[in-house]
Amino acid sequence: MQGNGLPVAIMGASGYSGAELLRLLAGHPDVEVTALGAAKAAGEAVGSVYPHLTPFAGRTFEDLGAEEVAARAEACFLALPHGESMALVSALLESGLRVVDLAGDFRLAAGDYPAWYGFEHGAPDWLEKAAYGLPELFRDEIREAALVANPGCYPTPVALGLVPLLRSGLIEPEGIVVDAKSGISGAGRNPTPTTHFARAEGSVRPYKAGGVHQHTPEIERALELATGRPASVTFVPHLVPATRGILATCYARLASPATAEDLLGILADAYSDGPFVRVLPAGALPDSKRVAGSNTLELGAAVDARTRTAIVVGALDNLVKGAAGQAVQNLNLMLGFPETAGLETLAVYP
Amino acid sequence: MQGNGLPVAIMGASGYSGAELLRLLAGHPDVEVTALGAAKAAGEAVGSVYPHLTPFAGRTFEDLGAEEVAARAEACFLALPHGESMALVSALLESGLRVVDLAGDFRLAAGDYPAWYGFEHGAPDWLEKAAYGLPELFRDEIREAALVANPGCYPTPVALGLVPLLRSGLIEPEGIVVDAKSGISGAGRNPTPTTHFARAEGSVRPYKAGGVHQHTPEIERALELATGRPASVTFVPHLVPATRGILATCYARLASPATAEDLLGILADAYSDGPFVRVLPAGALPDSKRVAGSNTLELGAAVDARTRTAIVVGALDNLVKGAAGQAVQNLNLMLGFPETAGLETLAVYP
Amino acid sequence: MQGNGLPVAIMGASGYSGAELLRLLAGHPDVEVTALGAAKAAGEAVGSVYPHLTPFAGRTFEDLGAEEVAARAEACFLALPHGESMALVSALLESGLRVVDLAGDFRLAAGDYPAWYGFEHGAPDWLEKAAYGLPELFRDEIREAALVANPGCYPTPVALGLVPLLRSGLIEPEGIVVDAKSGISGAGRNPTPTTHFARAEGSVRPYKAGGVHQHTPEIERALELATGRPASVTFVPHLVPATRGILATCYARLASPATAEDLLGILADAYSDGPFVRVLPAGALPDSKRVAGSNTLELGAAVDARTRTAIVVGALDNLVKGAAGQAVQNLNLMLGFPETAGLETLAVYP
Amino acid sequence: MQGNGLPVAIMGASGYSGAELLRLLAGHPDVEVTALGAAKAAGEAVGSVYPHLTPFAGRTFEDLGAEEVAARAEACFLALPHGESMALVSALLESGLRVVDLAGDFRLAAGDYPAWYGFEHGAPDWLEKAAYGLPELFRDEIREAALVANPGCYPTPVALGLVPLLRSGLIEPEGIVVDAKSGISGAGRNPTPTTHFARAEGSVRPYKAGGVHQHTPEIERALELATGRPASVTFVPHLVPATRGILATCYARLASPATAEDLLGILADAYSDGPFVRVLPAGALPDSKRVAGSNTLELGAAVDARTRTAIVVGALDNLVKGAAGQAVQNLNLMLGFPETAGLETLAVYP
Repeated sequence: MQGNGLPVAIMGASGYSGAELLRLLAGHPDVEVTALGAAKAAGEAVGSVYPHLTPFAGRTFEDLGAEEVAARAEACFLALPHGESMALVSALLESGLRVVDLAGDFRLAAGDYPAWYGFEHGAPDWLEKAAYGLPELFRDEIREAALVANPGCYPTPVALGLVPLLRSGLIEPEGIVVDAKSGISGAGRNPTPTTHFARAEGSVRPYKAGGVHQHTPEIERALELATGRPASVTFVPHLVPATRGILATCYARLASPATAEDLLGILADAYSDGPFVRVLPAGALPDSKRVAGSNTLELGAAVDARTRTAIVVGALDNLVKGAAGQAVQNLNLMLGFPETAGLETLAVYP
Repeated sequence: MQGNGLPVAIMGASGYSGAELLRLLAGHPDVEVTALGAAKAAGEAVGSVYPHLTPFAGRTFEDLGAEEVAARAEACFLALPHGESMALVSALLESGLRVVDLAGDFRLAAGDYPAWYGFEHGAPDWLEKAAYGLPELFRDEIREAALVANPGCYPTPVALGLVPLLRSGLIEPEGIVVDAKSGISGAGRNPTPTTHFARAEGSVRPYKAGGVHQHTPEIERALELATGRPASVTFVPHLVPATRGILATCYARLASPATAEDLLGILADAYSDGPFVRVLPAGALPDSKRVAGSNTLELGAAVDARTRTAIVVGALDNLVKGAAGQAVQNLNLMLGFPETAGLETLAVYP
Repeated sequence: MQGNGLPVAIMGASGYSGAELLRLLAGHPDVEVTALGAAKAAGEAVGSVYPHLTPFAGRTFEDLGAEEVAARAEACFLALPHGESMALVSALLESGLRVVDLAGDFRLAAGDYPAWYGFEHGAPDWLEKAAYGLPELFRDEIREAALVANPGCYPTPVALGLVPLLRSGLIEPEGIVVDAKSGISGAGRNPTPTTHFARAEGSVRPYKAGGVHQHTPEIERALELATGRPASVTFVPHLVPATRGILATCYARLASPATAEDLLGILADAYSDGPFVRVLPAGALPDSKRVAGSNTLELGAAVDARTRTAIVVGALDNLVKGAAGQAVQNLNLMLGFPETAGLETLAVYP
Repeated sequence: MQGNGLPVAIMGASGYSGAELLRLLAGHPDVEVTALGAAKAAGEAVGSVYPHLTPFAGRTFEDLGAEEVAARAEACFLALPHGESMALVSALLESGLRVVDLAGDFRLAAGDYPAWYGFEHGAPDWLEKAAYGLPELFRDEIREAALVANPGCYPTPVALGLVPLLRSGLIEPEGIVVDAKSGISGAGRNPTPTTHFARAEGSVRPYKAGGVHQHTPEIERALELATGRPASVTFVPHLVPATRGILATCYARLASPATAEDLLGILADAYSDGPFVRVLPAGALPDSKRVAGSNTLELGAAVDARTRTAIVVGALDNLVKGAAGQAVQNLNLMLGFPETAGLETLAVYP
């Protein structure tokens, strides 16, 4: 595989998203990874950090700057901590690279950054030019973009689950509740009290409740971008004792009576051309395990007629469709490759 | 421990709730278990089914009828499948026994049973006399009752989390959303596809979505019983890969602006005399692991001021405060024992 | 993928090994699955049982006999319960199909079956002609065989870890101890008390200790087949709370002083041409998680010089290199396809 | 409970062993915890670190020296990192306190420390006076001791499983293999790559293989102390994805033919007076989950007659019988309290 494809770089290659990019790109027929940037792991062999990444085992993580990356690659994934990408994109984009940023640096309006990320935005001009990388909703914009903001792991299932229903007018955009459950890998590779096995195993708990998680404005913005109307969302994320997987349960008021079949029909129509969205039949409900390792989003729906509430549920692998897989999907669109290149393997189940 | 206490029987002693009753009663200073009813496990030694129940290891499960139980005990726990208790209570109660029913047979109004449980109620007279066994809300009724309906595992954290806030008028009783997450032991001891490790491990998934879970009307009824006003609840339960524990996240519209501190102050006041409710300070949030093995309910709250939503979270061990522990607490009240008898051990954490 | 390849059937397609064959064959460029045999699941759509198997979602499990299979396929995987394959192979082989049997029916000498499997062997002639399907040790025999006995999940890591060291004379063939740990999927898809999440989660326990597991004679036979000398092995399997993965820790007396580097050098030489064996450097040790979803066997070694003991550790995914992946590898050899066809995806980690 | 008992201190109270001591002592009728030493957590409320430790919630961890401890307590548990206890014991013991050290500082001969712990022993005089705290084997010495070395989590099940059989002459003391599996809490509360959930979940892997784990000489010494004859042990520990629990599988050559019943009879006789050892009947095998939260050691045995190997299996909760529970048991003996005081609660299962 790694041979004569388009040269691609990864900045932040030693974290979980970086490793997942490598896993997927190992099977991508059209790209070649030519630069593996990593600050802390610089100098270490890929094979000593991630022995399972066989094709890259002999390669070495390097501490790379934008110039070196630009010299070696025509496209770049940024899998860096929030706030670091915005300092790098100018140099990369001005050198002509296509960039997919997996951090939150290009997902909101500039004015939202101080409140939700705690910093002023450092590249507001590029921010305006960035496409929001949800291919199933913004495929055309992504194809044209030089810079794509890869969505957060939580906004992806919520936006893909709700947008077609909002567009149809079947659900109300106000008063949406999103209760999301995430595996622990979403907290990253760095060991912390949160990621300690003894704390996480057997534990279900919310965090950042009360409208303070930075994916809250991203969800509202994605819904508005896609539907043209503002939406209000109460969002509470939870940690569950799984390594991978997000399940987002969305509650929305029905604008008029509808059945689960009605909702599912709209969703199925919306994604009939999308290879990565699996809309379940009525009665079936998504399962986060069933998408592990794949770029699939599983969508299901139910209706509580007593309370006139639509219940829309999305499940994905936070490291794939919620991060690295969607980033590869975006790059494929930007570069004119088949949208599924590198993303065809099925979930590993059970 | 097991010596000269009040003679107590368990029907359905070989299931998970039955075994948990035995674990707790082993440390109860005032009762003695004199009858271990179990149909399928009849003839088996307790020690061969549950080697950890050392004090009962030499005892044998028996296939017992109501008469034999009445002859041997002055109180009885019914830990049977839904629908079996209603056929037994008359004989037990008419013989003068105090009865705590852990099934759903005495939790709803008679008219609700066909729709939610699929059968006509067989003992509607007793149903009217049954107390709903949430001690923190109905302590006086329980003290006087001959028959107590032990609440469902999901209604317990929801009702205890919401009732004080509904009573205060701070939250609206309409449009409440309850998103609950449960460990697998809630599905019982019988092996099924749902309880298969390979399916449940790494998996988060909803079930019985759409207002069809039988705890839905129980939650609404408990709220109305305790507040005098009807409430409407959209309830979706989920399975998470843990053995024990339920975490219920409740979303309610604020009737007027309030802070997390306001909500927590009301909850703390409501349970200041209750030994089993731990109200966390603002900023802290419940964790299902932190109550494992104990009869504690952990409550926390947050406010999303943007959307005027109160977020109330309750965590308990579904086999203890959600079943056997609450049943012992109820029996203690019925019999005049200290409310904490047999229930004083702390959670096993981590 | 599924298009013009060689027509292949699976009998027992609805179990875990069957589903894993389908997952792998979905990405195999040279075969096409033309028959999905399953007795209990007959009539059900693949997509309703295993929604993740997207390319087969619209296909249906069928209750098929050998004749129908022979009419539709040129090769067949048998993923049936032990004892069922031996009744089918004659018809299949005489119709000219190549057969890979994933059960234990063709792994031992005929005389061993009554003692270890509880039945007389029903096809002793074919048993003599079957190749033992460990490609790294018996590649030539497999290439020529019409019938391959796919090895058990436990014998695979043990034989591949020990054979090169036995051949070298560095370790003694007598008094070997194999302590193996397996995930729960090894117990199959059928729900049982053993597979109940509440029992398995948090639990480590041995089973079939005392030389009674049917893989004991298979291990000894594989060692003798490959080295020409008898070996004696004490084998104790354990269940651990993971879905996939086997880790086998093998203890053997050193015939002469040696270091971990010595052992690892021999292993690396033995498998230098094999794409599926990863020999770790000294100091590193195998991890069952690191091979999940892949056909890789990870091998490591250490030496306890105080006790003159070689410690050889092998890790694999019991459903892939321990079952379906190895079966595909065997079929590839039998049919002259590239050995890695359908098996190139990397482990999903973490 | 916490009222007029004997004043007891804990040094290292904020780690997992410290927290477990607090959980157990909360239910101890005869002691009162008067000092909670912790360096890093000093100043923090117990309730903010461990909300489940209700009776201590309002107490504060303090940075305490030996003098302050001696002024406040008559007995002290040392739950400190290896190497820190030896600097403290003189001051404590000379002030008349009874001391139970949960670290490795007093478990080996002085000459063994440089090789196995990497430091010279700092208190060799006290080392000679320390009793090895395995109550079931050394009850009399413990009763007389001022200083008890609480055994390691691994040596406890191994020594208790093997000593009676070695004493009986039924198994050989040479060539013993111990393959042990431990939950992650054994690695302590500090977050590290080893304890990261994403790495540990689904993972089985050995560590410190090759006779380099510091419990190796402790096991051999315990066997020699108890039997009067040297023993040689190959010991390999493994990590499994559970929070609590150790299962040790021991392989020993039979000196003469014996059955599982023979072995189990000897074990049952040896521990007939011990409240904390549960010897299973033949056919049953230990399960680490079945002792979680309790001070029970579960022992089982099998015989592989083909290879003349005795297989002895022990399971315990590493934080209870493997650490804090055994420490309380030791203190009970030293102070003349009932051996089971504070240790009577049953395992939380499932």
